[in-house]
Amino acid sequence: MANSFSFRLSATDGAARAGEMTTAHGLVHTPAFMPVGTQASVKGVHPDDVRASGAEIVLGNTYHLMLRPGAERVAALGGLHAFMRWPHPVLTDSGGFQVMSLSPLRKITEAGVTFRSHVDGAMVELTPERAVEVQILLGADIAMQLDECVRLPAEHAEIERAMNLSLRWAERCARAFERAPTGHALFGIIQGGDDEKLRGQSARALTEIGFPGYAIGGLAVGETQEVMLGVVAATAAMLPAERPRYLMGVGTPADILAAVARGIDMFDCVLPTRNGRHGLAFTRFGPINIKNAHHADDPRPLDAESRCPAARDFSRAYLHHLFRSGEALGATLLSVVNLFYYQDLMAGARAAIGAGRFADYAAATAEQWAAKRDIFDA
Amino acid sequence: MANSFSFRLSATDGAARAGEMTTAHGLVHTPAFMPVGTQASVKGVHPDDVRASGAEIVLGNTYHLMLRPGAERVAALGGLHAFMRWPHPVLTDSGGFQVMSLSPLRKITEAGVTFRSHVDGAMVELTPERAVEVQILLGADIAMQLDECVRLPAEHAEIERAMNLSLRWAERCARAFERAPTGHALFGIIQGGDDEKLRGQSARALTEIGFPGYAIGGLAVGETQEVMLGVVAATAAMLPAERPRYLMGVGTPADILAAVARGIDMFDCVLPTRNGRHGLAFTRFGPINIKNAHHADDPRPLDAESRCPAARDFSRAYLHHLFRSGEALGATLLSVVNLFYYQDLMAGARAAIGAGRFADYAAATAEQWAAKRDIFDA
Repeated sequence: MANSFSFRLSATDGAARAGEMTTAHGLVHTPAFMPVGTQASVKGVHPDDVRASGAEIVLGNTYHLMLRPGAERVAALGGLHAFMRWPHPVLTDSGGFQVMSLSPLRKITEAGVTFRSHVDGAMVELTPERAVEVQILLGADIAMQLDECVRLPAEHAEIERAMNLSLRWAERCARAFERAPTGHALFGIIQGGDDEKLRGQSARALTEIGFPGYAIGGLAVGETQEVMLGVVAATAAMLPAERPRYLMGVGTPADILAAVARGIDMFDCVLPTRNGRHGLAFTRFGPINIKNAHHADDPRPLDAESRCPAARDFSRAYLHHLFRSGEALGATLLSVVNLFYYQDLMAGARAAIGAGRFADYAAATAEQWAAKRDIFDA
Repeated sequence: MANSFSFRLSATDGAARAGEMTTAHGLVHTPAFMPVGTQASVKGVHPDDVRASGAEIVLGNTYHLMLRPGAERVAALGGLHAFMRWPHPVLTDSGGFQVMSLSPLRKITEAGVTFRSHVDGAMVELTPERAVEVQILLGADIAMQLDECVRLPAEHAEIERAMNLSLRWAERCARAFERAPTGHALFGIIQGGDDEKLRGQSARALTEIGFPGYAIGGLAVGETQEVMLGVVAATAAMLPAERPRYLMGVGTPADILAAVARGIDMFDCVLPTRNGRHGLAFTRFGPINIKNAHHADDPRPLDAESRCPAARDFSRAYLHHLFRSGEALGATLLSVVNLFYYQDLMAGARAAIGAGRFADYAAATAEQWAAKRDIFDA
């Protein structure tokens, strides 16, 4: 019998919160970072290594998975957990964001969004009801409502129109989700761009419908970090304390710590794996671009004291060589390094909130990045 | 103190032989298959997974490594074993074969070969002495003499000229290798194309110089399998029983079993990883092209009874999806599957030779490939 979905706060520290989310496939400790498994794979990384990094939940992209291999096919194969061999919690987005960003032809109406598949060119319709159906077929522990996300900057009227459409879609998604299996949860998504008044309207209307969790969507889409954090702080303050809050698509380590300080519980971002593929390693001592020539003769590992074997066991010279030579192992190793780094960052945040010293933790972490202190020169 | 290099036959079965090779970095059981780590990485596969497959020795390519990252650099970083985190035996080729096949501009003289680097366009000279020096810098447990390899078919005079040049280079390599560290070994390479008389001359001259092991080069370069096996049988018969015999660049599972039957002890080939990257899995039931559409809905693993986790734990449908979606994890998983398959094939051969039933093993293995029996329909 599946657990029912629940969320429990275990500690707060200012606006920062630590908690536990119970899902059909197990516990997630918050603040949590979700690696992105776009096409049922966290790019280049074996699921055992994703787990070893400390990740308790991964994200799958409804847009990609509905087009290929197809939601009905995944369901017939036992759902996304079995398909990608990740028996732990999974959150899926609704597909809306990627329709906006990836589809060459798309038409948004009250009914939903119609777009041309980038896989086979077919026209596909994604309604709120279909977005929910697809996510149920995938077996997501946490599904997201379909919403319309507007790139910033945008006209006030355009932001308002999309926010109101997203609210009507939220209601339709909530109704459609009534036939989801026990223990699975649907989150509402607050829209409203960089306008705090619209964000407030959206938050109030969604909490009236009532969701087991709330996401803040439509950020990290072109605005400055300052604007983003302002909206995050204002929106989080309007949300019920007893529900998890998810800031979609964010972000850098600095973004995440700043958002945790403002009351956010969940994050997802492609940065650890995308940057890893491009030779950028996140470390306690700031980012390291392993392709730079000065690493070519460096026998030191990325971080001799890391919990991550890939960060400890290979020299910078070797990692540099792998990238210079186009060897795929380099992308995999740095993706793993970055996944561990993000999870360690979150574990540190959770511990600090529990100890009532999150501000110190965030400051000390940022200071260490800025100093770029050489770990062997200490 | 490093072991000194030695080879001991433990069993023979017709012309097939099982044995143990002791190197500075440990034991290698023969017949042995060496995965190819061209640029200090077995493509796409973590060294721990290479080891888990059962591989006891890997091959590194002198041509690639001398150009990038450079032999002196690898030496300064502690040698190839430390660099690529493979603390087990390593064999390096001499660079000759790749100079012939990869370099756009090359000139062969008595002194050696001059070629243009594909990395930075510089002109590079590779003499027998430099080939040995590079391999000592890399720290190879087994180094190979520089030779000239001729593509088949070729004129008799051309094959003879290259064979004789290779013999003179063998003497120079043997002299240069006298300053190698204790325990490391240099193998001679028999050339002579598809001409058994020339092969005989080459084998006799090399055994007169005296090497701790002998390779058969210049095969699998355009000739039929029948021609190749004829040359292998004739050449192996002319080599001293107490020295290991290495058939360079071979081959398919069928090639390998046929060559083991003819007295070969060592093999290397890029097939397991190259085919893995292209979606072709080697299995006990023959090759499987995972990209074929009929795998899209198949929940079965590649081989439920495999020793290889990747062959057991992921569905064919998922592997198919990874390749169709261009996800790098697919290439890694199938490369691992194939490395395990090759090692299991060799372990089976060793056991069969020990039990005096190698011919039965080879026949039963080939029969199972041909039947392509469905492992779930039994």
